[in-house]
Amino acid sequence: MTYCLAIQVESGLVMASDSRTNAGVDYVSTYSKMHVLADTDDRTLVLLAAGNLATSQAVVNTVTRDRESGARKDLLQSRYLFEVADYIGQISREIQDQVRGNGGAGFEPEASFIIGGQIRGHPHGIYLVYPQGNYISASQDTPYLQIGESKYGKPVLDLILQTDMSLEEAGRCALLSIDSTMRSNLTVGPPIELLLYGREELAVRRHCRFPYGDPYLAALREDWNASLRDAFGALPRFDWEA
Amino acid sequence: MTYCLAIQVESGLVMASDSRTNAGVDYVSTYSKMHVLADTDDRTLVLLAAGNLATSQAVVNTVTRDRESGARKDLLQSRYLFEVADYIGQISREIQDQVRGNGGAGFEPEASFIIGGQIRGHPHGIYLVYPQGNYISASQDTPYLQIGESKYGKPVLDLILQTDMSLEEAGRCALLSIDSTMRSNLTVGPPIELLLYGREELAVRRHCRFPYGDPYLAALREDWNASLRDAFGALPRFDWEA
Repeated sequence: MTYCLAIQVESGLVMASDSRTNAGVDYVSTYSKMHVLADTDDRTLVLLAAGNLATSQAVVNTVTRDRESGARKDLLQSRYLFEVADYIGQISREIQDQVRGNGGAGFEPEASFIIGGQIRGHPHGIYLVYPQGNYISASQDTPYLQIGESKYGKPVLDLILQTDMSLEEAGRCALLSIDSTMRSNLTVGPPIELLLYGREELAVRRHCRFPYGDPYLAALREDWNASLRDAFGALPRFDWEA
Repeated sequence: MTYCLAIQVESGLVMASDSRTNAGVDYVSTYSKMHVLADTDDRTLVLLAAGNLATSQAVVNTVTRDRESGARKDLLQSRYLFEVADYIGQISREIQDQVRGNGGAGFEPEASFIIGGQIRGHPHGIYLVYPQGNYISASQDTPYLQIGESKYGKPVLDLILQTDMSLEEAGRCALLSIDSTMRSNLTVGPPIELLLYGREELAVRRHCRFPYGDPYLAALREDWNASLRDAFGALPRFDWEA
């Protein structure tokens, strides 16, 4: 499994992902699920991938070849972010269609993607691309998108996220969301990658990787967990308690 | 959907459930999912049910008829709690088998149960009965069992629960777990039922029902959410922040 998350606030974007990949529970590997597809003068585009690893790798490989060969110019010449989402969705469908039917029952080539970034002259944004190739963007009311093992880490997002918070605050919220998920689900694991994109920067300036035991991540977790335990101890009592 | 939860601590048991039932998203109803099956001199047995509502109602109806008619004596005469779990599993399988195949694709008569309580002379305990009829108990390391929409409410349990906490503390933890779930998933909703069973009490003494807007539940939620927001604001900063 995998857990990837993108947050859109007024001041920019947060992209975050774990790095654990598993086929069953006994073949567990580490792969980055965050791919900077474009970081040029007029655009920054970052992809997060969840689902079948062969499909998501093939999508990244194909996008890279298209970009280098110029065979398809969607990535570098699209004027709108949604057109890039559409292009990713088309490639994903083509790759899935090539292998669908090759496997037995239970074979599942599906993959989901989040594409986030900014194209000069347009606002920054994030899109979730479904395995079927269609896509949705985030909104003011729902300023985040998730793919993979999304449920464990959702409550903290629903509680904390505000679109007017700083990029660093949104980044910490993303780390808490992934950390909650890692605690409850073995198939989501470190290193955690975190990319903070500031509105109008049109460049990747803060791309962090937190391996297992990273001191900042450990301090964040310890501080948060201690605060939650304190908060729990101070909750109002039932009326029959003294 | 549904979310039911049972916690086993040294001082007793907590059983908790939401009350929302839905067939799709446009037929939403309120049903209790907590059933006190036995509350006699020598045993207290409480059932939580999730899954197909017809199946779970039929199980409760059948158990009640068996108890009243004496046709099957498992509920009131089993010597071990696991035998009661086995009996629930058998009835559940019989009921599912009667209708399986009657529906088209997507028809799903499966239901899951948690049976918790105590039989005199034996320790208190909780069992999760799978749709297949087999069952597991909780353990010292995993002192809780969940059925239904379990993921949203798991992180708070993993963080807070200790087997040496008081019954009231465990009860508050259950309420937080259900409240987190309600916030993130519309198909889980109030009233919340909460039953606290004290070890060796062999009677149901504290069975609370928290409807929408209940003052205690509102105070608990407000206090917890405010503390979490404060804790979030006090988290350690990234190294590039002043």
